[in-house]
Amino acid sequence: MTAYQQLEERFHRIGALEQAVSVLHWDTAAMMPEGGGAARAEQLATLRSVAHQHLTAPEIEGLLEAAKADNTLDEWQRANLREMRRRWLHATSVPSALVEARSRACSACETVWRKARLESDFPAVLPLLEEVLRVERDIAAAKAERLGTSPYEALLDQYEPGGSVAMIDRLFGEITDFLPDLLDDALAHQATFASRPTPVGPFPIQAQRRLATRLIERIGFDFGHGRLDVSAHPFCGGTPDDVRITTRYSEADFARALMAVLHETGHALYQRGLPAAWRLQPVGRARGMAVHESQSLFLEMQICRSRAFLTFAAPMIRAAFGGDGPEWDVDGLYRRQITVERSLIRVDADEITYPAHVIQRYRLERAMLAGDLKPAELPGAWAEGMRELLGIVPANDSEGCLQDIHWYDGNWGYFPTYTLGALIAAQLFEAVHRRIPGLMQDIAAGEFAPLLGWLRDGVHSKASLLSSAGLVEHATGRPLGTGSFERHLRARYLG
Amino acid sequence: MTAYQQLEERFHRIGALEQAVSVLHWDTAAMMPEGGGAARAEQLATLRSVAHQHLTAPEIEGLLEAAKADNTLDEWQRANLREMRRRWLHATSVPSALVEARSRACSACETVWRKARLESDFPAVLPLLEEVLRVERDIAAAKAERLGTSPYEALLDQYEPGGSVAMIDRLFGEITDFLPDLLDDALAHQATFASRPTPVGPFPIQAQRRLATRLIERIGFDFGHGRLDVSAHPFCGGTPDDVRITTRYSEADFARALMAVLHETGHALYQRGLPAAWRLQPVGRARGMAVHESQSLFLEMQICRSRAFLTFAAPMIRAAFGGDGPEWDVDGLYRRQITVERSLIRVDADEITYPAHVIQRYRLERAMLAGDLKPAELPGAWAEGMRELLGIVPANDSEGCLQDIHWYDGNWGYFPTYTLGALIAAQLFEAVHRRIPGLMQDIAAGEFAPLLGWLRDGVHSKASLLSSAGLVEHATGRPLGTGSFERHLRARYLG
Repeated sequence: MTAYQQLEERFHRIGALEQAVSVLHWDTAAMMPEGGGAARAEQLATLRSVAHQHLTAPEIEGLLEAAKADNTLDEWQRANLREMRRRWLHATSVPSALVEARSRACSACETVWRKARLESDFPAVLPLLEEVLRVERDIAAAKAERLGTSPYEALLDQYEPGGSVAMIDRLFGEITDFLPDLLDDALAHQATFASRPTPVGPFPIQAQRRLATRLIERIGFDFGHGRLDVSAHPFCGGTPDDVRITTRYSEADFARALMAVLHETGHALYQRGLPAAWRLQPVGRARGMAVHESQSLFLEMQICRSRAFLTFAAPMIRAAFGGDGPEWDVDGLYRRQITVERSLIRVDADEITYPAHVIQRYRLERAMLAGDLKPAELPGAWAEGMRELLGIVPANDSEGCLQDIHWYDGNWGYFPTYTLGALIAAQLFEAVHRRIPGLMQDIAAGEFAPLLGWLRDGVHSKASLLSSAGLVEHATGRPLGTGSFERHLRARYLG
Repeated sequence: MTAYQQLEERFHRIGALEQAVSVLHWDTAAMMPEGGGAARAEQLATLRSVAHQHLTAPEIEGLLEAAKADNTLDEWQRANLREMRRRWLHATSVPSALVEARSRACSACETVWRKARLESDFPAVLPLLEEVLRVERDIAAAKAERLGTSPYEALLDQYEPGGSVAMIDRLFGEITDFLPDLLDDALAHQATFASRPTPVGPFPIQAQRRLATRLIERIGFDFGHGRLDVSAHPFCGGTPDDVRITTRYSEADFARALMAVLHETGHALYQRGLPAAWRLQPVGRARGMAVHESQSLFLEMQICRSRAFLTFAAPMIRAAFGGDGPEWDVDGLYRRQITVERSLIRVDADEITYPAHVIQRYRLERAMLAGDLKPAELPGAWAEGMRELLGIVPANDSEGCLQDIHWYDGNWGYFPTYTLGALIAAQLFEAVHRRIPGLMQDIAAGEFAPLLGWLRDGVHSKASLLSSAGLVEHATGRPLGTGSFERHLRARYLG
């Protein structure tokens, strides 16, 4: 066996272990009785540690070196080798004592955060957050040295391989240039529409589930290779051949669970469309969290919150709940799906204000990692940032700097991927429109195959062959920018 | 760390990996969409292979040797060491080429068997069965040499540690001595009862599920540490802190799914009652398949098919289905649960005829492994055996030697555990009766705590501390025999 083949065999095992972790993670959230938690933590820790051992085995370095010289490798194999090396660099750059310190710090902090958030008690979690930050800074420094990036980029690279601060600063700068005025205009435009009655529940959960199932099946979710279940927070897990999405239902509001399902279906179609020939290999995995988020936002925001989609879906929605009357017509349903509001909570934010929430967090986490902002100063900086970006200020830390788990759980460098995903989604939407001019008529007729085919060809089947930037350019014909996103917002919210 | 402590650490990891396998196995049967099969097989094969590598690591032998000399170990630690050694012997006695040959042979044979059974086409599967037998004989020989047992006992030891042919021959001999006459008498006695109307469905599955949930919760199944789901074949899986049982429902018959749930609940209570202090260690596991089956048969046969249990359950059953009339009274429900019949299919057999099915298979698999019976002669030998043991002959191989998966899937040496379990269950029942004279009044009143407490103390919490024989003697005060079982059958079926 060549060095490259030996690497493939080893990464195949690592991939299978990680798939097992993914299914168990889904089970934890969607199926496991509460009393199974401690045993499950032990199972997951063991699987992760075994996978880590395989990834950091002493022979890997020599094999990576030897394979680099192998000039028989084709394009996919070379990309696979690059991705193997990237994963190996991340895994070997942090000493195991630091990995353990991180795990302990995050686990302690997250536990206290859950209570602190409920009670809006930032001082209670502050010392633990300071410890997490200390450890994250050490990790960022260690990874930066090996990867040859800045410390922030080293953390970002865990979620968005190859992501750069220069690129994000440029894109986010463009957004902050146009967003405040656009938001004012959208709110003014929205005010010109008479407010309409809203469908009133209860909406039986069984009916919501059936409706969601029918809609996503029609869009292309394959229940022969996937499931839809319930969990406290909607997510997409499982594996490419067995995609597990979840949502949570409320009898008072059908739209929220439904939009969550459609969002997760975007992730699911991506996962399912990854190339079968590269299953379990690093190059066969999703490109990164920005591209992943682009797929969920593409489906949720670009497609399913469009008037065309609601033209298709409205009769099914009405039939599901026996709905009748003006609050159930296409226009009413559409207007409610694109309501804009200055609000404090990121996960409830609309398409226009969402980037402001992300930019706020990106600025603050960079400042904290650079040592320019102390965690103790976070509440003040939060209020200041919100005032500047959205013109509102939280009344307490629960609706401020305590609202998101990311910092307390050690996911520093993650936030930018949400808005990068939104930009990519908008750019993909313009591109597919150029290729399929009748796209929105297809959607209105419930015909999703051409759209899905285009995504499969241009994005899903490419997995990690290209960089994120390369993938966007390949699929859309131009480098990632903010133009498509701005045009999309103007068309939808000012049109 | 002492050698023993090092072993505990290693076996802890192996235990966690095996728990992960167990949860994924449950998922495969109860949750996984069909299209996930190939990926799941890869995940399971990888986890099993990693666990096997840990178990057969070169350092283990020296650690086992060194720990043997450690005279600071207490009773549980010594037993743990003994169980570690037993597992290590099994894992290292078979060369990996033979392990792979077995896996290939069984997988090929099982696939063909599924079709052959449907079509009653024994010749189609015969060459594959011959190959499985060849491999099993090689494995039996290799294991026998290391374990110091006969080849059959080496296979039996995989399921029933320490089980001996001499013991089984003695017990099964006693059964065949009393069973034919007892069966005749039971059928004659049964004929003296007027046949009664049977409740007629449909019995909504939701109502069946609710009833089963309420009954097993009352018995002691803890839904904070377990679930009840649906699969093609009922089983009990998961882990001691997260027990997953399944059943399958038919709208035409509520009793079958319910009795399956009660049977699996017996397994579940055992698993849940294993000692928390020894989680993930070999000594903390269930003693073997005979004791496991004793727990399911104890609950199903001794307790839940009793008139006392039905006195408690009948009102709940009637309430679940809106049942009314004589077919729903305690006596009618009870009589239907203890109906005896000479029949061809093991899994449908009643308590009296079941041992005959097991003895038949035990004789035939021993003869095949010894080379005294060729697989080609199986259909003839099957007919002959059934005629002798039950006085009936299958019309085709589907209801004969093709009915069970065990031989085609490589589970040779498993069958005796069913009847050993029935014997242990009956002996436990007599023992608990001596300790709790008012037991059946408790049961009739829906009071299961004293019974469960006795099982926890005497059986569950002992895990693998003792041998099976030692455990039975510890819990019942006497060695395993057939007396209790015979008395139980006479009391229930001739009384």
